[in-house]
Amino acid sequence: MNDADDHQSSDPSATLEGEIGLVEPRDFVTIEPFAFENGQILPGFTLRYETYGRPNAARDNAILICHALSGDHHCAGIHSLNDRKPGWWNNLIGPGKPVDTNKFFVLCANVLGGCQGSSGPSSTNLSTGKPYGTSFPFVTIRDMVRAQQRWLEGIGINSLHTIIGGSMGGMQALQWAVEFPAMVKRVLVMATTARESAQGIAFNEVGRQAIMQDPGWNGGDYPKNGGPRVGLAIARMMAHITYLSDAGLDRKFGRRRRHARAPLPASASAEVAAAAGTDLKTDPRALPSRAQFEFEIESYLRYQGQSFINRFDANSYLYISRAIDHFDLAGPDGTLEQAFAPVKAETLVIGFTSDWLFPPEQNREIALALIRAGKRASYAELDTDLGHDSFLLESPQLYNLVRSFIERTQAKAGILKS
Amino acid sequence: MNDADDHQSSDPSATLEGEIGLVEPRDFVTIEPFAFENGQILPGFTLRYETYGRPNAARDNAILICHALSGDHHCAGIHSLNDRKPGWWNNLIGPGKPVDTNKFFVLCANVLGGCQGSSGPSSTNLSTGKPYGTSFPFVTIRDMVRAQQRWLEGIGINSLHTIIGGSMGGMQALQWAVEFPAMVKRVLVMATTARESAQGIAFNEVGRQAIMQDPGWNGGDYPKNGGPRVGLAIARMMAHITYLSDAGLDRKFGRRRRHARAPLPASASAEVAAAAGTDLKTDPRALPSRAQFEFEIESYLRYQGQSFINRFDANSYLYISRAIDHFDLAGPDGTLEQAFAPVKAETLVIGFTSDWLFPPEQNREIALALIRAGKRASYAELDTDLGHDSFLLESPQLYNLVRSFIERTQAKAGILKS
Repeated sequence: MNDADDHQSSDPSATLEGEIGLVEPRDFVTIEPFAFENGQILPGFTLRYETYGRPNAARDNAILICHALSGDHHCAGIHSLNDRKPGWWNNLIGPGKPVDTNKFFVLCANVLGGCQGSSGPSSTNLSTGKPYGTSFPFVTIRDMVRAQQRWLEGIGINSLHTIIGGSMGGMQALQWAVEFPAMVKRVLVMATTARESAQGIAFNEVGRQAIMQDPGWNGGDYPKNGGPRVGLAIARMMAHITYLSDAGLDRKFGRRRRHARAPLPASASAEVAAAAGTDLKTDPRALPSRAQFEFEIESYLRYQGQSFINRFDANSYLYISRAIDHFDLAGPDGTLEQAFAPVKAETLVIGFTSDWLFPPEQNREIALALIRAGKRASYAELDTDLGHDSFLLESPQLYNLVRSFIERTQAKAGILKS
Repeated sequence: MNDADDHQSSDPSATLEGEIGLVEPRDFVTIEPFAFENGQILPGFTLRYETYGRPNAARDNAILICHALSGDHHCAGIHSLNDRKPGWWNNLIGPGKPVDTNKFFVLCANVLGGCQGSSGPSSTNLSTGKPYGTSFPFVTIRDMVRAQQRWLEGIGINSLHTIIGGSMGGMQALQWAVEFPAMVKRVLVMATTARESAQGIAFNEVGRQAIMQDPGWNGGDYPKNGGPRVGLAIARMMAHITYLSDAGLDRKFGRRRRHARAPLPASASAEVAAAAGTDLKTDPRALPSRAQFEFEIESYLRYQGQSFINRFDANSYLYISRAIDHFDLAGPDGTLEQAFAPVKAETLVIGFTSDWLFPPEQNREIALALIRAGKRASYAELDTDLGHDSFLLESPQLYNLVRSFIERTQAKAGILKS
């Protein structure tokens, strides 16, 4: 908020890396009807968003960040001075950082269907006074993008210097380039795909089953802070494994136990029965622990599941994971090359060698299809062992790619490494 | 049963491929106390087993098959003339097949801790008249192997021509070679590991949480044919994905829908609410379907979960998956090379390129450690796109490797392909 004020300065010191500092989310609210891809209509919607940096006079420095399944609009800065956890892409976005808020006006909105302030299943249906639950219209990636376009138009942004997204954020960025080609100059996607694979659908479906089979789900009708907390935690634990990698987990956790050299449990009841429903009944927020016997990876995963249920709505998880499943830019009959015909943006696609959720081939295929369609596109592959989440982690190589792509005046097409 | 009677024939036609036909499981029951690795003692145990072919006069043609997590003693033949599903490795085992029951006496037992007739959590504790549940002693791979040794000794088999196992079966085979080196001449393991990885533990833990958080688990105390059926189905669905591969799933299912060209659902309630708890309440065995909108991979996975809960006990799943987690031949301080010091067997290890549960590296490492320990060992890597389950599927390459390894008189050490 403060540092970003320096964006017009030509003083080199202003480009030293700094922090965005305090940010405040805002709501874009429209009462114009919004037609979903399936034909249903909402009488309006809200998108919660944040911005960093400032629009320049020409209004040509806007960068849109699109978030992934479990992300939200808060991608940089902090919400209070006591806030120890900055936004999810704070390492990438800020004054002097690869997405330099001294130069760019950066925006990010919680997706339609989300649960962090944008309209979604947990929003109140004004005609009933209750949350929509599963009566909220089916949401697609295209719906998310079209709502974002309405928001940007509403706040006076008619052109995007760059759209950046990883994972489901990449799907939105590609959909943007196809849907609103005149608005998009550059697209930078990473760890993503142009069509969700059968394996991806399979993992999503197991997560949904865990949620929907939890009695707390109750057909999607549950109180705020209640609902299928156990099912959602299990869905998250499983999904979290798919965001990492075998090698990364081995390096980080290996077979370490929380208590080194714990003997074998006296009986399996000591091993497993401590995990029985008792803890759960006394505190529905707590997943039980089996302190003495457990491997560190187990308590780490349980922590991930636990913290997720305190910030995410189960119905939103169902909706957004379903939007991902249905994402297939080429459609059942077309080719990706045909789908990319309208694109005007130049595109950089980044794949990560250890990403097995959206593996390098699926990323490379995006760039190749763009090139076949006669577009300016490049592909870069980064060698990491951190899995899908590599796109979120500190990496000088990634930072260099991002900075040079968004700051150079003209990108060259080609495959940087295959 | 019939064809196997020909095993002493020298007529070449007797080696034509045939079927084992009807087999009948038998129970080995001992009332000698059995001490588990953790020190607990059972007053005896039962192992259910099957045999195919006949022991020769020298009693040196016995081949032990070790099964994987969800397998059992029924690895070949059929149980009745109406039985349309033969044993799980029927393609490999039979008269004239790679594991040729005309030549070999093949044995397979349900593991200790299992639920198909061997002693495990669902067995009746005679001192209470109720199932052990989680009071059954904690089981390790070493316990499984030591129980098998007692069984073989009990039925008069003191020497094994070969032990064959894939996945958890491979863990048992390796443990056998270390624990009872004088009894084991050859070891053939595939799609396995000498130590469960952090990622493997992580997936197992999510499955266990799904089971234990199902109210039907009730601390492990549930009626037969009841229990945490939903949790077990979810655990199985997730595990099943790890047995396959991205490419294999893409080839088999892709993004096909059960109803081609289904429109987008009218609302998400049509999409997800059909999957609500209602079906579940009316029929606890049924996972709900969302016929019109679903992808084929989804109904396939649900079918897998569904059929599993009709044949597997949830507590056994907890116990056996935990045995896998604890498997680490080298131990926390040692090296695999040291662990293999007692081995006398010659070993063939087979890895599959698309197996990401127990990837090729983990298999190759077994052979390399054996070679470093001065043992006769080979490694072969088969190029498949069928994932971990490759070891169970038809493959002329696999068949040739198996047949030549168990039939040649002396194996040569080396890495066949790396």
